[in-house]
Amino acid sequence: MILTVTLNAALDVTYRIDALAPHTTHRVREVTTRPGGKGVNVAAVLTQLQEPVVATGLLGGPTGEQIRAGLATAQIPEAFVPIAGDSRRTLVVADGTDATGFWEPGPPVTEAEWEAFVSRFRGLAKVARAVVLSGSLPVGVPNDAYARLVAIANEVAVPSIVDAEGTALGRALPARPTVVKPNAAELASVRGGRTPDTVADVLAAAHALRAAGPGAVVCSRGADGLIASVPHGAYRAAPPAAVSGNPTGAGDAVVAALARGLANGDEWRALLADAVALSAAAVAVPVAGAFDDREYDRLRPTIETEPLILPETLAE
Amino acid sequence: MILTVTLNAALDVTYRIDALAPHTTHRVREVTTRPGGKGVNVAAVLTQLQEPVVATGLLGGPTGEQIRAGLATAQIPEAFVPIAGDSRRTLVVADGTDATGFWEPGPPVTEAEWEAFVSRFRGLAKVARAVVLSGSLPVGVPNDAYARLVAIANEVAVPSIVDAEGTALGRALPARPTVVKPNAAELASVRGGRTPDTVADVLAAAHALRAAGPGAVVCSRGADGLIASVPHGAYRAAPPAAVSGNPTGAGDAVVAALARGLANGDEWRALLADAVALSAAAVAVPVAGAFDDREYDRLRPTIETEPLILPETLAE
Repeated sequence: MILTVTLNAALDVTYRIDALAPHTTHRVREVTTRPGGKGVNVAAVLTQLQEPVVATGLLGGPTGEQIRAGLATAQIPEAFVPIAGDSRRTLVVADGTDATGFWEPGPPVTEAEWEAFVSRFRGLAKVARAVVLSGSLPVGVPNDAYARLVAIANEVAVPSIVDAEGTALGRALPARPTVVKPNAAELASVRGGRTPDTVADVLAAAHALRAAGPGAVVCSRGADGLIASVPHGAYRAAPPAAVSGNPTGAGDAVVAALARGLANGDEWRALLADAVALSAAAVAVPVAGAFDDREYDRLRPTIETEPLILPETLAE
Repeated sequence: MILTVTLNAALDVTYRIDALAPHTTHRVREVTTRPGGKGVNVAAVLTQLQEPVVATGLLGGPTGEQIRAGLATAQIPEAFVPIAGDSRRTLVVADGTDATGFWEPGPPVTEAEWEAFVSRFRGLAKVARAVVLSGSLPVGVPNDAYARLVAIANEVAVPSIVDAEGTALGRALPARPTVVKPNAAELASVRGGRTPDTVADVLAAAHALRAAGPGAVVCSRGADGLIASVPHGAYRAAPPAAVSGNPTGAGDAVVAALARGLANGDEWRALLADAVALSAAAVAVPVAGAFDDREYDRLRPTIETEPLILPETLAE
């Protein structure tokens, strides 16, 4: 099975209203809820792929109970560690035009709760084919949390993927995760400086990040696909045409495909093409953690993966 | 004890954010929750007045559990009847400037749940000194719900107050509640036509509403105080100066004062003066269901209650 870690799991709540008018009151027409957080979305995509998965992380309080119930409804096996705090909600207010988001802060985590999680992770990682570490760290979890979990995965020779940004990602790099998957803004968040824009800039930034420890850096670029700096090479994978829809969760679909590919030992070109197809198929559905099966089947043979040549100044 | 009924109880949630920008995402700085719904606010005010109270109504799901826990923390005795649906949340997003509200729809109520509530109410009303029926009716509760509860209160000779609007209020009138407390807009919601504005218009509208059944009509007019059409007369009660603050919950404080006064058999002039003082003291605190003790003590002796003369065309 593939193990996904979501330390800051959330209940994703959507309010449907007629039109947002600041500083007035609104009647909510419909409330929908689903378990969320990046790692939970990855687990949901893997479940839809019929890939055995276990979702773990930290959950607590009445909101945690609702997340747990939602995972049971979605038939996603879970082994979350209980905490005393109440898990957070992410609220999206959708009117006819667009969406407005409100991200609650996560609950504080105690040292004992974090240590209980590490112990749970150690047991689960031993029997995993790949581990996925996704998203932000709640208050109380140490900055080097992902470094510690990656080290445990490396001890038991299980490939690891880190999907995070800023300090959480930066501190994970020296522990040598198998893959990190920043988008362009997240690349900048760990390296500093401007968000890289052109293919050459992104490749240079990805290559530089890989020098800090990870086996591969896969940068997701929305409709432009992926740019990857991997052992012995670099690639660009892109769909033949942009897919319109909801980009939320597209990155989680990339991570799900990478995790499955790493677990199966797929070669990089095939793996990246699959990740682009699954990501585009996720854009075609309105919620995170799901993809359009037909679109995925249609897109898979169409993705172009081309080798990129590193500029001489960067080549090893 | 005084019995308060909240059929559509809510968890009042406040998000503090920096500034609301539609169609962007916002980091929530702080989340606060408290049990809400008009009848719950009345019970909270009565608890602060050290007046014995029991809060009843319908509660269900994880949100219902959070409301129940909040009542326990606030030391408000409760006898809510469980329902299968999840109780609603009312969300207020407060930025530096003002507040934006999102009212979730209430959960649907089954016929069996409603009948279980009526049975619970019958038992509690027998031992109450006054009953308060506040707020909207959830889907599944019949339109004449308040009429049925008022009839039960009348059977056991317990005074009743209805604080509702539209059909819920209109259908309650023929059952002859002791008092109804609409604001000017709610007066119009049950009678049709424009919202009455002047003292003479409000008095005429209140008087006409009283002809439909209730013993007294007390109309709350924000900073302008109260206008009441009561048996054998009419009154206007107003504070000497406007109190600045948060008007949310001012009407619930009026109802709390009326319930206590009716339970004690106070005469109308004193009762209305007390209601205006308590309402103004509630405006002085930022949340509903609470009042400023000192402000209440300071204002009580200052409220002016004057008899109003009904125009000849309306006089009995």
